[in-house]
Amino acid sequence: LPQPVESVGPSDREAHSGTQSSHRLLAYSDALISIIATVMILPVAHTKVEDNEVQFLRQSVQLLLTTKIAVYLMTFLIVSVAWAAHIRLFQVIVRIDDCLALLNLACMMLITFLPYTFSLMATFTENVLGILLFCGCVMVIGVIQSLIVLYAFSRPFLLNEQIQISENQNYYKHHILQVIMRVPIMCFFASIFSFIFFQLSYVLLAIIIFLPYISQCLKWCRSKAIGQVEDTPDSMLFYTYLPNEPLSKDRVEAFSDGVYAIVATLLILDICEDNVPDPTVVQKQFGGSLIAALQVYGPEYLAYFGSFATVGLLWFVHHSLFLHVTKTTRFMGLLNTFSLAFVGGLPLAYQLTHEFPRNSRNELEAIQISCVIVFFAGIFQLAIWVVALYNQQETLHPYVRYGGREHEFMLAKLALYPCVALGTFFLTCILSKFSAPIFHLMEITVPFAFLVLRILVRIGLALLRLIFCPDRPDPRTVVEEEGDETRVPFNALVT
Amino acid sequence: LPQPVESVGPSDREAHSGTQSSHRLLAYSDALISIIATVMILPVAHTKVEDNEVQFLRQSVQLLLTTKIAVYLMTFLIVSVAWAAHIRLFQVIVRIDDCLALLNLACMMLITFLPYTFSLMATFTENVLGILLFCGCVMVIGVIQSLIVLYAFSRPFLLNEQIQISENQNYYKHHILQVIMRVPIMCFFASIFSFIFFQLSYVLLAIIIFLPYISQCLKWCRSKAIGQVEDTPDSMLFYTYLPNEPLSKDRVEAFSDGVYAIVATLLILDICEDNVPDPTVVQKQFGGSLIAALQVYGPEYLAYFGSFATVGLLWFVHHSLFLHVTKTTRFMGLLNTFSLAFVGGLPLAYQLTHEFPRNSRNELEAIQISCVIVFFAGIFQLAIWVVALYNQQETLHPYVRYGGREHEFMLAKLALYPCVALGTFFLTCILSKFSAPIFHLMEITVPFAFLVLRILVRIGLALLRLIFCPDRPDPRTVVEEEGDETRVPFNALVT
Repeated sequence: LPQPVESVGPSDREAHSGTQSSHRLLAYSDALISIIATVMILPVAHTKVEDNEVQFLRQSVQLLLTTKIAVYLMTFLIVSVAWAAHIRLFQVIVRIDDCLALLNLACMMLITFLPYTFSLMATFTENVLGILLFCGCVMVIGVIQSLIVLYAFSRPFLLNEQIQISENQNYYKHHILQVIMRVPIMCFFASIFSFIFFQLSYVLLAIIIFLPYISQCLKWCRSKAIGQVEDTPDSMLFYTYLPNEPLSKDRVEAFSDGVYAIVATLLILDICEDNVPDPTVVQKQFGGSLIAALQVYGPEYLAYFGSFATVGLLWFVHHSLFLHVTKTTRFMGLLNTFSLAFVGGLPLAYQLTHEFPRNSRNELEAIQISCVIVFFAGIFQLAIWVVALYNQQETLHPYVRYGGREHEFMLAKLALYPCVALGTFFLTCILSKFSAPIFHLMEITVPFAFLVLRILVRIGLALLRLIFCPDRPDPRTVVEEEGDETRVPFNALVT
Repeated sequence: LPQPVESVGPSDREAHSGTQSSHRLLAYSDALISIIATVMILPVAHTKVEDNEVQFLRQSVQLLLTTKIAVYLMTFLIVSVAWAAHIRLFQVIVRIDDCLALLNLACMMLITFLPYTFSLMATFTENVLGILLFCGCVMVIGVIQSLIVLYAFSRPFLLNEQIQISENQNYYKHHILQVIMRVPIMCFFASIFSFIFFQLSYVLLAIIIFLPYISQCLKWCRSKAIGQVEDTPDSMLFYTYLPNEPLSKDRVEAFSDGVYAIVATLLILDICEDNVPDPTVVQKQFGGSLIAALQVYGPEYLAYFGSFATVGLLWFVHHSLFLHVTKTTRFMGLLNTFSLAFVGGLPLAYQLTHEFPRNSRNELEAIQISCVIVFFAGIFQLAIWVVALYNQQETLHPYVRYGGREHEFMLAKLALYPCVALGTFFLTCILSKFSAPIFHLMEITVPFAFLVLRILVRIGLALLRLIFCPDRPDPRTVVEEEGDETRVPFNALVT
């Protein structure tokens, strides 16, 4: 039965009293979820690593890796999955009213509680209570999301215009409810299994998280084995879990901004809590000289400015990239989540690089860990671009496509941090004199590299021109040609 | 000399390579500044208040009030002033390029460092180093902002369209530079005075912060004394410091969202850091029963859900209000800042309400402090609305103006939290049995009050109708009339 068509353009807002644009609700949800995903690095960063030359940093880091870093990464992943589900839901529901806003807040309250249940699970791996609490939260979230869907479909003017004018609205409703309820139902079984054989519950929970990816893989394998199978109708644009299903670009940006902002802020929070000396200590140990007392904290300040510069520039690269991205897909969103998970690790890098005595082996290893974190944060940003280039007609602005005038410059921007991190990593292996202050000074000088990057790209292209085709005199056409020259190896890399 | 007019609509973006919409840069800056302003509550909330019946809570709170709360409030105020300056700057500069983005990041780095200099000033009040560091930061921020202005005016396509087409662009440039440089120059004098007589520096710094308000007051007094004086040209729309100077509504919302989000997140951070029991403790004290160990934390969970509900609903009220605000003025922005400063105090309220034994005098006083914080957070939101009603033709959507069909409902929404907080405060004075769990249960039930608020408002209006004019039978016209009835006392209150 076709539903009555109601157009709800922004100018038609007066038509339904109490109906509101969902923009700000979503921005607030993004801010909440990104902060929740990232603050779980604090318990990791605040773990004191023993400075014992016999028991090397590698061992304490391994201890960290096994428990707290795993909690952080899993929390980040689970919260990201919850966030992706939230995006999907509000791509279907584009307008809200008071009731939906309150239901969404209830949903947010439970999502922010997830990290705690996860901490319990990690601390008491053999106790079922953590699993039960986690499953309980997920089930309640599922019920609230189903309520949101039912409420929205009972008031069709709240829905996406495509669904509003669709003839099989009921089909959409059932499909969406089915997808949403799949997770709480599996959690219900996981909580029952936890009483019988709790290891199975963990496996089941892992399956739940990776379910869309697993089902996509299975589908892909099947299509390769028995030929192309199209089982979803063409009209089904939502909840497909295809890697190229669109993901709201605004919300990916808002989520990323939240992560970058909270990471930059956690750095200064540590400074403010730990590095204000006690007046009595200043009086006793430094004879009342505040400057002398603060000089002790010199490395901290340098580490702060260096880390802030790194976070700020990684945001800058992200910003430059997404400025030229016209459509975000689920796969790009996944790569972005991986990049952000490493960005969230930067407070740990900051903490490690300034807490060891200079020229110790621990210090070098702390710098190496920082390089690894920065390298992966940067390389996943580059990966987003590579994926976008695969389908450049749909996902990229003409400027940065192959042959676009900003193409090489964008590549240089995205490649700068992975290259610098890799270079620094190898420097630490060769030079034993390399120290944390040098590392932080390097971090502070990178912004200037970005300022001269455009000139460097020009020079690089001119050099390539000199080497490969020195007989072409016209610089303008040659620069165009150079674009082609440099593209060839990159193309080979991609395909 | 009139500058060449260059139109820079969003579709003209291709015209200048590397020119970008500033939207995301501003959203990121808002997120950073709001988080920085709010996280300074953490050192306050983490201060352990001694639970000593002889030395009552009031004394320890007084101790807190004099130092850490003062630092928090001053930081919030100063960072808000820096944020207001940032808004003003980017109301003039509406498009950015890479260079401006990097300059802005440098500016952000120094703004995030301000809370630390302020902590130093508060801890070592008689030492000039804190003042010098603070003044140094402010001076560098001023220089960077001047650079941003000079750079933007050298590329007029980055500017606001009004300035672009203006004939006296140079006049604008000089006026803006003059306003921006006033603060660093005064800081320069403050830092010199600090060597001679440091008390004077504090006075000077206070003057700097309140300078726009002081100069506005002086202007207003002068205009009252010798008649209306108009010394700025009509065309000067930026950097006027008039109370009705527009303040970008998007940015006020983004800043508020950041504060509400970080406050909600600080609550769960405390839960995750403090309330995961140690496995060995569980084994020894509770015989391995995790449920028994977690039951100890029962009040914390209740406090968390109650506090989250309060933060979420205060955000909801703010969201409902700003949905119907069409233009934000500087004065409304100031009231919003006051409201947010109290919202930022909620983690302190959360910490206080669950750390005292039940039925102690401290517990009652902690609840009272919570009520005061919620009351002021709510009353300043109400004040924004009252101010907006003064100039309702410009600032409010027709629905919520006098006689609009949402007017009474909006008043009820805004008045709910101040009323509940006030009521609870008096309940604690009367009932000695009132306890923190009851308080948190109340907090959790308030959302349902919002759900039935629309019905309550209808009933309230019907009752008023029965009392004041029982002889009118037609409910429809009478409801309209009731609007007038209820408006009269409110009008009297406003004027």
